[in-house]
Amino acid sequence: VFSGREIRLVARPRGNPVTEDFALAVVQYDEPAPGQVLVRNLWMSLDPGVRARMNHGPSYAPSFNVGSSLDGSAVGEVIASACEGFLPGDLVVHRAGWRELALLQPGVASSLPPRHVRPDGVPLQAHLGALGHTGFAAYVGLFETAALRPGDVVFVSAAAGAVGSVAGQLSGLRGHKVVGSAGSEAKVRHIVDNLGFDAAFNYRDGPVAEELHRVCPGGIDVYFDNVGGEHLESAIGAMRDHGRVALCGSVSTYNGDTSKGLRNEFQVVSKRLTLRGFLIADHLHMWDRFLEEVTPLVMSGQLVQRESVVDGLENAPAAFISMLAGGTLGKSLVRLVP
Amino acid sequence: VFSGREIRLVARPRGNPVTEDFALAVVQYDEPAPGQVLVRNLWMSLDPGVRARMNHGPSYAPSFNVGSSLDGSAVGEVIASACEGFLPGDLVVHRAGWRELALLQPGVASSLPPRHVRPDGVPLQAHLGALGHTGFAAYVGLFETAALRPGDVVFVSAAAGAVGSVAGQLSGLRGHKVVGSAGSEAKVRHIVDNLGFDAAFNYRDGPVAEELHRVCPGGIDVYFDNVGGEHLESAIGAMRDHGRVALCGSVSTYNGDTSKGLRNEFQVVSKRLTLRGFLIADHLHMWDRFLEEVTPLVMSGQLVQRESVVDGLENAPAAFISMLAGGTLGKSLVRLVP
Repeated sequence: VFSGREIRLVARPRGNPVTEDFALAVVQYDEPAPGQVLVRNLWMSLDPGVRARMNHGPSYAPSFNVGSSLDGSAVGEVIASACEGFLPGDLVVHRAGWRELALLQPGVASSLPPRHVRPDGVPLQAHLGALGHTGFAAYVGLFETAALRPGDVVFVSAAAGAVGSVAGQLSGLRGHKVVGSAGSEAKVRHIVDNLGFDAAFNYRDGPVAEELHRVCPGGIDVYFDNVGGEHLESAIGAMRDHGRVALCGSVSTYNGDTSKGLRNEFQVVSKRLTLRGFLIADHLHMWDRFLEEVTPLVMSGQLVQRESVVDGLENAPAAFISMLAGGTLGKSLVRLVP
Repeated sequence: VFSGREIRLVARPRGNPVTEDFALAVVQYDEPAPGQVLVRNLWMSLDPGVRARMNHGPSYAPSFNVGSSLDGSAVGEVIASACEGFLPGDLVVHRAGWRELALLQPGVASSLPPRHVRPDGVPLQAHLGALGHTGFAAYVGLFETAALRPGDVVFVSAAAGAVGSVAGQLSGLRGHKVVGSAGSEAKVRHIVDNLGFDAAFNYRDGPVAEELHRVCPGGIDVYFDNVGGEHLESAIGAMRDHGRVALCGSVSTYNGDTSKGLRNEFQVVSKRLTLRGFLIADHLHMWDRFLEEVTPLVMSGQLVQRESVVDGLENAPAAFISMLAGGTLGKSLVRLVP
């Protein structure tokens, strides 16, 4: 019998989540039944989208039920297996995060099935960041959803964040002019100094439309949207003809603040824009190509991913709240085993 | 020397246009210079998009200058020509409407160049409606922009209007379930009884989201948007996964009322929707295919287009204002020669 802790949602947040919305519980696990794999999670990912799924109603994945455990990307080591192809000691990325032990059923159809991680010389947690679902979201959004073309000028919001930092760097490494937004002066400096963006602005400094025009007066062709709301409206306003928006998330709306609705839809007509939402699970056929292209960039250090790490599952809620409030840089992670 | 009247914009409307925003002026024309063609307009089209171009700022075509003539689709007869391929008596569709005589320069590059009309047994004004830019907008929006697929359920706003009525009928004739919205009970009955829509609602009866759910509880796959605003937000809310919106116009915003902004952009992500604006000038390679497919439908009467006709250029502004207010059914036209 194995025992591990997990985080449960005990109340739906109203606005910003508070630690009282979460609770820690202990779960007992038997030996895996046929087809099951028991994994000890080593790292888990903190993703803004989890906040959306804490609301009632449709989201990009099923909403969490009050009283149930949360989930998200994690990487761990198989400690017991009754499933062919999974052996103790294997390293596996999967979606059963927010817990110390995860009971997987790899044979059951899933939109994001568990995947083996091959030892490849990068830190294990990179498989949750630049080489994981995070980096893959940047890759899919840019190259498939926005169909990045030579000469496109790219704008990325939440550009110091996990997905945005990869999207911006992948654009820049391909020779695109790329500008970004973030929520502090330190992040703005990081984006330009460490991530190679051509320019960046602090969206708290003034109307996004004005700031975007200031740093990129010639307009943009592609917007990688992690934010929604005022950012999305401003990007539409700055778009050149035939521009494209890849909608990856809209964190500005997750807390229920939809006061800043999009009002310039006519420009979508007049400039023949395309706005397209995507989920990575629809694009797994691109996974091998993604790894092939991005792994060398991570290994060589050309693609940088900062990490904000806390230790211990019990600290995940506070770290998650801090990330949503803009208090972290790069990929937010919880290390579950010291 | 030839003489003809034209309509000019004398003041930018604030909100709903009034007749005082327009003025009638007389223009003298010399014999056509080399490359020019003088056309006596017989019919002109009244299009909602002209309202957008009366505002200052970016639109789907250049804004009109105060003091300058308006323009739009028209069909007329060549009365003098110094341009190869154009002979007196030829019937020509072109973009120099809102005037009685039009001086064309067919050799000058244009996004929508003048086109000969072949006598084909349909009323001449049909080349401004179902067989003109109007019908072509419906065709492009459905089959190219929204990429209509077998089994798609289609929603069309302004469904009793010129473009919407064609979009809905083309969907229905291909076997799609199609629902529409309009602004009066009479229009709703017309859509269902005469145009073959499966269902329709009066958007003045209640929140669009509720009305749309009432007539189409299973959701929609394609939305042909002529309206923007609340309609667009409601359509996004009703979309099934991988739904598509063709944005053709957003008449609800042209008068400056953008109070009802779009606030559910996260559903564009979670349902992987595509919103795409289009202008017909980008798709002229589809013109022959469009005529080939739609001409028989018009000639056989399978595709119906009601017309709201006024006589005389001097009555164009009032008719235009009435159309914007929802006072017309089908294609709004001005007959310039009795």
